[in-house]
Amino acid sequence: MTGKHGLTQQHVARILGGESLETVARRLAPDLENLPAIPAGSAKVSRERAEELWQEAGLDPALRAVLLDPAADELPLYQGNIENFIGLLKLPLGLAGPLRINGTAAKGDYRIPLATTEAALVASYHRGCRLLTAAGGCTALILYESLSRAPAFVFRTATEACSFTVWAVEQFAIFQEVVGTTTSHGKLIDVGVTIEGNHVYLNFEFTTGDASGQNMVTIAAQAICDHIIAHTPVAPQRHYVESNLSGDKKASTKAFTTTRGKKVTAEVFLTAEMVKKHLHTTPRAMEQYWQMSAIGGVLSGTLGIHGHFANGLTALYLATGQDAACVAESATGVTRFEVTDDGGLYATVTLPGIMVGTVGGGTGLPTQRACLELMGLAGAGKARALAEVCAGLLLGGELSIIGALSAGHFARAHRKLARDRNKGNA
Amino acid sequence: MTGKHGLTQQHVARILGGESLETVARRLAPDLENLPAIPAGSAKVSRERAEELWQEAGLDPALRAVLLDPAADELPLYQGNIENFIGLLKLPLGLAGPLRINGTAAKGDYRIPLATTEAALVASYHRGCRLLTAAGGCTALILYESLSRAPAFVFRTATEACSFTVWAVEQFAIFQEVVGTTTSHGKLIDVGVTIEGNHVYLNFEFTTGDASGQNMVTIAAQAICDHIIAHTPVAPQRHYVESNLSGDKKASTKAFTTTRGKKVTAEVFLTAEMVKKHLHTTPRAMEQYWQMSAIGGVLSGTLGIHGHFANGLTALYLATGQDAACVAESATGVTRFEVTDDGGLYATVTLPGIMVGTVGGGTGLPTQRACLELMGLAGAGKARALAEVCAGLLLGGELSIIGALSAGHFARAHRKLARDRNKGNA
Amino acid sequence: MTGKHGLTQQHVARILGGESLETVARRLAPDLENLPAIPAGSAKVSRERAEELWQEAGLDPALRAVLLDPAADELPLYQGNIENFIGLLKLPLGLAGPLRINGTAAKGDYRIPLATTEAALVASYHRGCRLLTAAGGCTALILYESLSRAPAFVFRTATEACSFTVWAVEQFAIFQEVVGTTTSHGKLIDVGVTIEGNHVYLNFEFTTGDASGQNMVTIAAQAICDHIIAHTPVAPQRHYVESNLSGDKKASTKAFTTTRGKKVTAEVFLTAEMVKKHLHTTPRAMEQYWQMSAIGGVLSGTLGIHGHFANGLTALYLATGQDAACVAESATGVTRFEVTDDGGLYATVTLPGIMVGTVGGGTGLPTQRACLELMGLAGAGKARALAEVCAGLLLGGELSIIGALSAGHFARAHRKLARDRNKGNA
Amino acid sequence: MTGKHGLTQQHVARILGGESLETVARRLAPDLENLPAIPAGSAKVSRERAEELWQEAGLDPALRAVLLDPAADELPLYQGNIENFIGLLKLPLGLAGPLRINGTAAKGDYRIPLATTEAALVASYHRGCRLLTAAGGCTALILYESLSRAPAFVFRTATEACSFTVWAVEQFAIFQEVVGTTTSHGKLIDVGVTIEGNHVYLNFEFTTGDASGQNMVTIAAQAICDHIIAHTPVAPQRHYVESNLSGDKKASTKAFTTTRGKKVTAEVFLTAEMVKKHLHTTPRAMEQYWQMSAIGGVLSGTLGIHGHFANGLTALYLATGQDAACVAESATGVTRFEVTDDGGLYATVTLPGIMVGTVGGGTGLPTQRACLELMGLAGAGKARALAEVCAGLLLGGELSIIGALSAGHFARAHRKLARDRNKGNA
Repeated sequence: MTGKHGLTQQHVARILGGESLETVARRLAPDLENLPAIPAGSAKVSRERAEELWQEAGLDPALRAVLLDPAADELPLYQGNIENFIGLLKLPLGLAGPLRINGTAAKGDYRIPLATTEAALVASYHRGCRLLTAAGGCTALILYESLSRAPAFVFRTATEACSFTVWAVEQFAIFQEVVGTTTSHGKLIDVGVTIEGNHVYLNFEFTTGDASGQNMVTIAAQAICDHIIAHTPVAPQRHYVESNLSGDKKASTKAFTTTRGKKVTAEVFLTAEMVKKHLHTTPRAMEQYWQMSAIGGVLSGTLGIHGHFANGLTALYLATGQDAACVAESATGVTRFEVTDDGGLYATVTLPGIMVGTVGGGTGLPTQRACLELMGLAGAGKARALAEVCAGLLLGGELSIIGALSAGHFARAHRKLARDRNKGNA
Repeated sequence: MTGKHGLTQQHVARILGGESLETVARRLAPDLENLPAIPAGSAKVSRERAEELWQEAGLDPALRAVLLDPAADELPLYQGNIENFIGLLKLPLGLAGPLRINGTAAKGDYRIPLATTEAALVASYHRGCRLLTAAGGCTALILYESLSRAPAFVFRTATEACSFTVWAVEQFAIFQEVVGTTTSHGKLIDVGVTIEGNHVYLNFEFTTGDASGQNMVTIAAQAICDHIIAHTPVAPQRHYVESNLSGDKKASTKAFTTTRGKKVTAEVFLTAEMVKKHLHTTPRAMEQYWQMSAIGGVLSGTLGIHGHFANGLTALYLATGQDAACVAESATGVTRFEVTDDGGLYATVTLPGIMVGTVGGGTGLPTQRACLELMGLAGAGKARALAEVCAGLLLGGELSIIGALSAGHFARAHRKLARDRNKGNA
Repeated sequence: MTGKHGLTQQHVARILGGESLETVARRLAPDLENLPAIPAGSAKVSRERAEELWQEAGLDPALRAVLLDPAADELPLYQGNIENFIGLLKLPLGLAGPLRINGTAAKGDYRIPLATTEAALVASYHRGCRLLTAAGGCTALILYESLSRAPAFVFRTATEACSFTVWAVEQFAIFQEVVGTTTSHGKLIDVGVTIEGNHVYLNFEFTTGDASGQNMVTIAAQAICDHIIAHTPVAPQRHYVESNLSGDKKASTKAFTTTRGKKVTAEVFLTAEMVKKHLHTTPRAMEQYWQMSAIGGVLSGTLGIHGHFANGLTALYLATGQDAACVAESATGVTRFEVTDDGGLYATVTLPGIMVGTVGGGTGLPTQRACLELMGLAGAGKARALAEVCAGLLLGGELSIIGALSAGHFARAHRKLARDRNKGNA
Repeated sequence: MTGKHGLTQQHVARILGGESLETVARRLAPDLENLPAIPAGSAKVSRERAEELWQEAGLDPALRAVLLDPAADELPLYQGNIENFIGLLKLPLGLAGPLRINGTAAKGDYRIPLATTEAALVASYHRGCRLLTAAGGCTALILYESLSRAPAFVFRTATEACSFTVWAVEQFAIFQEVVGTTTSHGKLIDVGVTIEGNHVYLNFEFTTGDASGQNMVTIAAQAICDHIIAHTPVAPQRHYVESNLSGDKKASTKAFTTTRGKKVTAEVFLTAEMVKKHLHTTPRAMEQYWQMSAIGGVLSGTLGIHGHFANGLTALYLATGQDAACVAESATGVTRFEVTDDGGLYATVTLPGIMVGTVGGGTGLPTQRACLELMGLAGAGKARALAEVCAGLLLGGELSIIGALSAGHFARAHRKLARDRNKGNA
């Protein structure tokens, strides 16, 4: 049984747990007996409606007491952000920083609220922020802004696909006008064409003002599609407002040479003394770890080269009311550490797809709005600064984790925090 | 200016906003003036400590009132899950389902709490759940379980790397004993070897019981590393407990042929009538969309083929106290839709890296624990069932979104919910 | 020993073959004893120079007789295409087709010479060509043309990188003039900017006339670099004429949404009767195979979705004097098979990176030139047609292999040809 | 027209060349007029049969004289390697080396024949070989051997897929026996299971002796499939001998953590003096280039990190009768350059998928056999040594090109050789 097939056999035995294949197969089959009633969905958010849902569902009132705080009076504020509302989830918030950012839009010392349930996460980013600030802050830059929706048009033949394309690219100015009827904040800036056989993928690229903008570009793209269908000299057999080419909700290498949302970079120069004092290691050790880990990532078939962008980004997205599912697309990019000629460390991160806004989405909800205000980044005119803060935070996080891995402290930190938790709860 | 370089020029003009390059460059430079004091981090979670942090930070007390609810008495329960605690973030919870799951571990009708701030998300998953349940439920299966930590060992030469490997693979039974001293829940089941020049990456694979297990395998891998360093006949120049080969916190294609956490699949057969009734489209239209979108994904350089796994997975991870940052690694896999010989629809999802636990992490926090209890999935013995529920939920979500995109309703739903929000808040 | 580590042990035992690790390690060490003399390289191609090389190398004259045909009088014609010339390799040529192509540049019935040593390859492509021609030929289209060189510029800071970029994109018209001094065939059509920290990657995009163009764009990019270094207001610390971002000699997903060389597509509609007659299977069976294999490819982490582009492309590149190493970058893209509403088969291939020319490189060598002339595609004005022929040939090859795999004939064909070989050689 | 859409318009204008869309569309349509006769294929290789083909095809006799050398008497030797034989293609051969290899199987000084039509290729590899040999040779190692065929089995349900898998993995010893009836050289060593919904992909892994082995494993996998279909307790709806999961003829990241064919590594240590003397640059400059280019590759979405593996590998595959189409899968992996503590350079390459054999395929053809003999690597018992020579050669090639790019000599070399060509031909 040497080999992977032996492991498969062991797994099967674990799953079956002594039952026969037949018994398990019966359990896996569709079962039309006693189908439960399924409530119609409801977009209304109120205590009354929530209590009805709890009642209808026949769920334990003790749980309701936990999730539907009897004292909460702000429930209607969640309307438009949730359906079938039954209560509120609470996530602990920790504060990292102040982090000094020297950016095009962000400038100053930012205290950064992070929402997470993972031990050591805030501590690790806080350590990174402290180091960056001690160095006079990190530089952070918006490199490009563009969010895409990519409708697809299916024709009978590639010839028709091309004829359509010839027409479509000539309509660009008209498409811009059409977009203008759906949004005053979003602008259509380009359209890329990808033809595959009789498929045409039109990758419409927009700027979205201070909103993250997914809904804005969906509505704009639908309006363009409607215009196209009404006016095209070559009718498609089918068309779709989104073709999965835009990279929505998933990491893609396409974003690396273009952009998805906001492309940002942050960088810092650290002296060997600072690396020693804050991270207990050396620039050379960190460069060596970086190099080894770059290859580790490549060998496993990941996109980009980085450490743990997802950790800080998720915590900051949550705290500030961003769409946390966008972590799947945003938490990718490149981290790079280099020893400088004078023996210090140059560290940089670049993320091609930061999806952030300071208006719309969850940014207006009570606690999320408070977190944005705490940073001085609530409302219009602040989205670029928030993106630059993201970049700076993640640079701090990469320094902290790679510092710990280089110094051999990574597992130790986790052991310690696990112990603390046990003590704390005792 | 035809071409991308013209867009770059326009972007630059937007960013500079009339300022000179020199002015902006000065703003971007490190600034050592008036460095802020940075508080030492604190793992202690209490109202008193939080209020001290607010004070020290000099933040607006009005914000404190929003984030640090004066009535909340459960604050110490968060100790061990957060550092530099300053308050609680609130996310609205919506209920999808009941979703009937016919699984190896999950069996029955599950009401699924989803935490999100994104309009339409719960409604869309609820619609998918309703359809699956009407079909007698979906089948869901744990296909494999394995979580890896991948230490790296750097030698002087590839020859030494190979000599080390020869020794290391012979120690497997001893490594299992070493792991046994660190955890009673985790088991070492295999080790894969990847040599690159003088680098050796040892991919240790574990089962982790009912915990998600990242910390467990980190501590176990550290113990193996300590044992290796104490006993190896060939000393490495450097070693690291994690090499970035494990796929931790990022999607990788390696996971597709192995596993990361729990590999799960779910499937359902739907009649054309059910597709018509619930999704207002046809099996053929959905198959056609699937096919077009599979190519869209491939062309953009994503991993796997799917629609929007990240949406439902993030919302369920959050509600149940999982590490939401793991969405970056978990929200990948394969969705497949096929017309069956009798004109119905076969729909299936497979995810190679579900990172879920029902003990540890955030699963014991008050609202998260309540959500798990609401599903009947709290505590030991429930992790496999939770993984199968994830698979079923995501199958429902893929049916719902691809149904909407096939029927041309996708943008309409977003427009409507956006309008509702405006009304609701008015 | 269940698991992969057991296989590693078995491999090690095979490699050691009974010798000790120490013995093998000694063999692997550098050995400075008796270093051989190494001849200076020579670009001169003549029989005399070749014979000197044979002599100097002390190689078996019997081998020289095989490789350096005493009757060959065309040897000087190879000058400029080889160094350290010692003789000629012979590859058998087979003829596929005639293949009818209905293209923008290619139009008519093409006999296609294929150079390969692999049994069944020509037979398989010939079968595909016959089918396409019987259908009235395939449609083939050049979708885009662009070849890139991507110099990189390393600055001290990201700020300097951005300042440089602002200047560089404004120089586009001047860069076009600079390119004009190096080539009359190549045109600079755009430049894409990718900034990563303090790195700037400038992706210069060119059309290259009827040459494949790698050297042309290298020389043009060097001239641009020289101009930049002489004129930039922000001096880079280092710069390189190629940064590995262009995709030269390796497949990249970047090419899918842009292009590398020539982007081509080909398509055909086949009736069920034709599929039955030529491939002994059905459109539905082929669609089903396609779908399953698309997922197989995705699961293994390949780029694109296709069957065996590399086979036909290598054979045609070799026969026509293309750079066969470009197969590594060109043999990727998308194959798609669909059942049409009337029960027939729609089949299409799209390749984003065909690297072909009809002038330059190996296209002027005697046998390669003869192959191009045999197709009517030698010399200026023919490169686009050759690219369209490539697309058509590969469409035929995909139909043939997927037909064989769908019908269960794939292994049988290989068994038969292997038997024939034995008989033929007996 | 700023943006990509403007470029699309320019491209369209170029392609149309003044003709109307309608005219071009007519040219692209299938055309059933005057269909050419298509000759039946023929596996017979002889001068007579070839002359018949030339006649039937009505091709220019002058071309026949070039391709079908009247003096060639070895034509029947090509039978079994080609169909529809019409002549011989000639490629110039250049000699690189001697290259000293210190390997497990290769040991000594190898003169390496390279078949290419690309100027500067042999010169560049020769330069790399000279440097390696001057350093006492490079170390080269076979890290693993495994070639896969991956049949797929499609069931009605995932439940059936799993039941089948339970049975199949228990048959491993029987599968080994079945394989034994088809080959005495190949051994089945493992089978990996990948389930996706109702699909089962069985990745059978073999060693293949001294053959490259693609046909061997195809025939063996077909025999296993036949056995499975005859004996499985759970019948699949469809099955295929190859599912596109094996990585055949395309690069995949799966190969990085497993292997495809032979996984090899090579390494060398060079002093700063040697780098200076041979490459006119410094270890630090080469490390810096490597680092920048690693990121360039990642940003463009390539697999692995390397420079130009395809160049040398194609030339050596061709010269030694390998399947040159395998370059698409083999020319990937990792190159790594590091400055050592004493200021020298550590350079290494690792390729996970070298597809080489010294028996079978094209290895027995006259000129290919001569090239193998010239290296001392013809026939049984030599395949591992050939794989190690490949690794060493590619290490030399990476040193040479990265040396040139670091020193700024890359374009200069191409300019010079282009000039030489013109002179040489004059």
